[in-house]
This record gives sequence, C-alpha cells and structure tokens, in this order.
Amino acid sequence: MCKTDADRSNIESRIVSLVDKWSAMPMEAEMPEACRHVVDAVSRQATSSSEGGKRLRALLMLAAYDAFDGHADTRNAMLDVACALEVFQTAALVHDDIIDDSDLRRGKPSAHRALETDTGSPAIGRGLGLMLGDLLATVCIDIVNEAAALLPHATALTSAFLNMQREVEIGQILDLAVEQAPLQDAEALANASLNVFRWKTASYTTIAPIELALLGSGAAPGQARERALAIGKPLGLAFQLEDDLIDVIGSSRATGKPVGGDIREGKRTVLLADAIAHADCAARDELIAMFEASSRSESDVSRAIGLFQSTGAVERSRQRIGALWDESVQAIRECKLEQNHETALLETCARFVPDIAKS
Amino acid sequence: MCKTDADRSNIESRIVSLVDKWSAMPMEAEMPEACRHVVDAVSRQATSSSEGGKRLRALLMLAAYDAFDGHADTRNAMLDVACALEVFQTAALVHDDIIDDSDLRRGKPSAHRALETDTGSPAIGRGLGLMLGDLLATVCIDIVNEAAALLPHATALTSAFLNMQREVEIGQILDLAVEQAPLQDAEALANASLNVFRWKTASYTTIAPIELALLGSGAAPGQARERALAIGKPLGLAFQLEDDLIDVIGSSRATGKPVGGDIREGKRTVLLADAIAHADCAARDELIAMFEASSRSESDVSRAIGLFQSTGAVERSRQRIGALWDESVQAIRECKLEQNHETALLETCARFVPDIAKS
Repeated sequence: MCKTDADRSNIESRIVSLVDKWSAMPMEAEMPEACRHVVDAVSRQATSSSEGGKRLRALLMLAAYDAFDGHADTRNAMLDVACALEVFQTAALVHDDIIDDSDLRRGKPSAHRALETDTGSPAIGRGLGLMLGDLLATVCIDIVNEAAALLPHATALTSAFLNMQREVEIGQILDLAVEQAPLQDAEALANASLNVFRWKTASYTTIAPIELALLGSGAAPGQARERALAIGKPLGLAFQLEDDLIDVIGSSRATGKPVGGDIREGKRTVLLADAIAHADCAARDELIAMFEASSRSESDVSRAIGLFQSTGAVERSRQRIGALWDESVQAIRECKLEQNHETALLETCARFVPDIAKS
Repeated sequence: MCKTDADRSNIESRIVSLVDKWSAMPMEAEMPEACRHVVDAVSRQATSSSEGGKRLRALLMLAAYDAFDGHADTRNAMLDVACALEVFQTAALVHDDIIDDSDLRRGKPSAHRALETDTGSPAIGRGLGLMLGDLLATVCIDIVNEAAALLPHATALTSAFLNMQREVEIGQILDLAVEQAPLQDAEALANASLNVFRWKTASYTTIAPIELALLGSGAAPGQARERALAIGKPLGLAFQLEDDLIDVIGSSRATGKPVGGDIREGKRTVLLADAIAHADCAARDELIAMFEASSRSESDVSRAIGLFQSTGAVERSRQRIGALWDESVQAIRECKLEQNHETALLETCARFVPDIAKS
C-alpha cells in the first residue's frame, strides 16, 4: 500500500472514532424511550455525514507536514488535525445544505433531509440538522485543541484553525452577498466571485492545510502564514475555477457527473462573468435575462454552455487556472525543499487541478 | 459605582470591541458596491445581537473568580472569558430563533428576521442569520483561546469552554427530541425535561461560569469540574424552573412580561408534566388534548394556568426550586471560603432565583 493510500485509510477510521468520542450523547436512564430514537438518529447522522469525502485536504496537510520535515513522533497528532479539518468541512456542508435546501450530499440524503425522514417532521428535522452542524463545528475544535497540545505552537495552531473557520464563514456571507450583485457589471462580478473563492474555498482547501502543517512541523507562525498564502491561495482559486469549469464542459477523467448544474441553479460564477464581459450585446442581454429569471430550462442550460464556449469564457478560465497553478508551483520551488520532498508536494498539489497541472 | 455595576459596564464595552475585532469583514476594493450593504448589515447585526443581555453569566464568572481568590493581574483575561460566554449565548440564541422561527429577541427583531428585511429576501436573510450564528460561535472560541494563554491551565480552560458549548448543543438536540415525547407518561416527561435543563441551560448558565472561574484562579481541572457541578447543576436547574414558573404565575418583581407564553407555544415543561401527573382523569385528558393540538386559544391558556395551580404543580415547582437552591447553598458552604467571599458568591447566585432565594 502506498503512503497516500495508508494515510487515506487511517484518516477514514480515525474520523469515525474521533467523531464518536466527541459527539457522544448522554443516554441516561431519564431519557424516555420516545426520545431515544431521535438522539440515536442524530448520532448516526454525525458519523454518516462525515463519510465519503475524497479527503484531499487532509492528505495535503500530511503531505505538506512530511515535505516540511515534520517530526515522525508527532505525525499522529498532525493526522488528528487533518481529521479535524475534514470534520469542519462536514459541519460547513451540513449548514450549506440547509441554506440551499439541498436534498442530496455525496449521493445520500443531506443531513437535515435524513433527519426530517427520521423524525417525520420537517421543522424538527431541520432544527436537528442545524444543531448537528453546530455540534460538528465544536467537535473539530476539540480535536484540534487536544492534538495541538502535542505539537509545536499549540495556541497559534488552534488560532490558525479558528482563523480558517472564520474565513470560511465570512466567505459564505460574501457568497450570499454576491447573489444580490447585479449582472450588468461583469468585471466587478468576476472580481467579487474570485474574492468569494479566496474566503470560502481557498481558506480551508489549500491555505489552512499548508499553514497547519508548517506550524505542526515547527515553523514560526508568521512564516507559516506567508508560505501557506503564497502556495495555497493561487492553488485554491485554481481548484475552484477548475471545479466550475468541469461543471460546464465535463472532466477529462469521465467523472460521470452531469454537466450544467451550476447554470441550472443560476449560480454567479467567474465563467458567467467572463461570458457576459465578452459577449456581443444580444448574447449579453440574453445571458443576463436567463440568470435573472427564477429558473432555467434544459435548453437554456445548453445555450449558456454554448455561449460560455463561443465567448471565450471557457478558454479564459483555462488560462486563469494555468497561471494560478504556475504561481503555486513557483511558490513551492521557492521553499527550496529537498528534491524528493518537492516532487511529492507538487504531486499532491497537482491533484487539486488534475485537468491542468502538467505534473 | 459598586463592583457589579463596574463589571457590567466593562463587560458591555468589552463585548463590542471583541466582537468587532474578531468578526471584521474584509472590505477589499474587489467588493462590488451592491454586495457591501449586505456585508455591512451582517457586521451591524453581529454587534447589535450581542447587546441587551442581563450578563448574569458573565457576572457570576467574575464573582466566582473573586471568591476563589483569582489573581488581580489576570482578572482582565478572565473578563474576556466572561465576555466570550455572553457571545456564545448570543450565537446560540441566533440559531435558536431560526429553529423556532421567532420574530423577536430582547424586544428587537431576531437576527435572521432583521437580515431578511435588510436584504429583501427571506432565503438570503435566513442564510445570513445561520452564518452569523456560526461566525459568533467561532469568535467566542477565539476570545477564549487568546485569553486562556494568559491564565493557568490554558488547554484545560479552552477545553472546558468547548465542553460547555457541546453540552448546550446536545441539550438543544434533547430539547427537540422531547418535543416528540408522548404526554401520557408524565413522570418520564418530567425527568426528560429536567435532563434537558441540565444540558441546555445549567451547562452554560451556572456550571461553566463557575468551572471556568475556578480554572482561571488556578484550581486543578478535576476539582474545578466537581465543584462547578456541585454548585452549578442545582442552581441552573432552579433558575430554569423559576423561569418557567414566572411564565405561568408572573414574577413578584413585576417584570411586566405577559404570562402564559410557554403554554401558548405548547412547550413541554416540568410544570405541565407535574400537572398531568397530579390531575384527575378528566383534567388530565383535557391537558393532553390541549397540548397535542397545533395551537392554544387565550381561554386554553387561562384554563391551563388554573390547572397548573389547582393540581399543585405550581407548589411542587416552588418546592423543587427551594430544595435545589438549598443544595447549591450547601455546596458553596462546603468550599469553606472566607466569610466575605462566601457572602458575595451567595448574593450573586441568589440573582438566578430571586423569587425563592432567602438571601
């Protein structure tokens, strides 16, 4: 088994035991039978919501820890911090699904939807989903607080984790704010969307894993932050741009995911902004009307994909991703790591932009 | 100005500056004009949601810190932890109001309702309210993590704060579960409700303030936990029972709050359980039918209040509160504090049960 596979398997089982430990519900004798099934349902959902991620972020943290010469003795504590990051993502997704009223997550019913079914009450199910998200957000900090005590810079490490959590929350607020941005000023919309990516995605996807790994391997907090931003900010933006691009043109890796979901939902993306910016007047008005409408038909989706291509927005996104990836590679090279460490870190980072990275 | 008034005023201004510091939004040039008013609205709401509490919990923490001989040099760090507790309460109330779909909080529109008005969109307003609750929950741990580094037992202190946060979240889950409990088994319902009080209320109202104060004044974590439970658990249960009782019979202090709100909402309380347990068959069936109905009329409310009195449930609650308060006083006496410290702590604790405590 290669190191990455071993890490992935360790992450998976460790997440289950950490979530079980920190979210254990009191099952006193006082609990009436009729309430137990509700509490059981929340406990089960705490574990099952945590399953099924690709664990890209946890794997990046461990790869960066190894690349930056983290001590073998404390690698298990770093593994716990990596698990905490995955649990944090789960907490954020549980709340995200409530905000978007989504039915599905990772191919299964979303947490609040599953709890609606378990309790037979939409109001109670949604309330329980909201509290489950809160509980998992607390659990992840518990995991970090305990693990940080075994690593260098304990307070700074917990503080960096909290900073990441705050950045994602601010990113979600910005994302909701951008929903109210007018489509007419396409350049402002593109910049606003890239800004959302920085806070909502890059923060916890690439910046925090590298920053926490550097702190865990003993780097000074200021240097850890600076390096994490230099490598992680462009990488995280490239990751989100590629994700949005795959939603429009599909992946070279045949993920089987249907295309056009973001368009159907009317999501304000950089692709949309680029298309509006470079369309002729008629196409521009057509796109704006389509995205200002309350819903979009299948033929709207096809038409929008066509316009994203013909206006050069797809090509512009490819260029953006390529430039950001180059920036990230450059920042990794400037760390002057040992050759095998540099190669391993580059390979892990390339997984965030598989269709673009020429690794 | 007496010490409590000075503390209250310091808490009030410190909360504003801590919330401003830790929830600051990035207002880069990239932010389009159209998004700024949304971000501004969330920032304003972060501060205004934090205003207007009685600060009973923060004042208890500081009084306990003084009583347990906390060091004067680190009292400001303890004050920050006390502010963090108030911010945590605000975060919990913001989510609670979303779960209950409440219009008002402390006489003003609830946070999500205010944000609905600000954005003109119920969906976006509710989403922003949910994220504001998440953000404030992160902010309070930031405050604790920074302050704990200046106090004894930094990791244990942060861990105790997180434990409190988890207990409240579990308490909310239990509370939602009890909504599905049958009314027929009144004894089970009374026990389940008291169990909810332990997790949802006593946890952060009385147990955590005392535990954090003990840790901050240098007590060993195990001892801090034990004493905080001995004093805080009965006190917190008594506080919630008195709150529920005032809702039915009004307060001797003429708070001007209308009575019967809990009955109108159909809340499952210990009072209701006691009334069902001691009513004759006809009254029992009447109460069960009334609380199983989807709403209750004003004459239902009057009738229920009458039954809460005639069945002896009101008197039973007074006895419960009295016995719990005695238990708490006994636990304080067993700490063998200096006389003036004991008196001051007893006075502060008596504020949680003003109608019962014979201080």
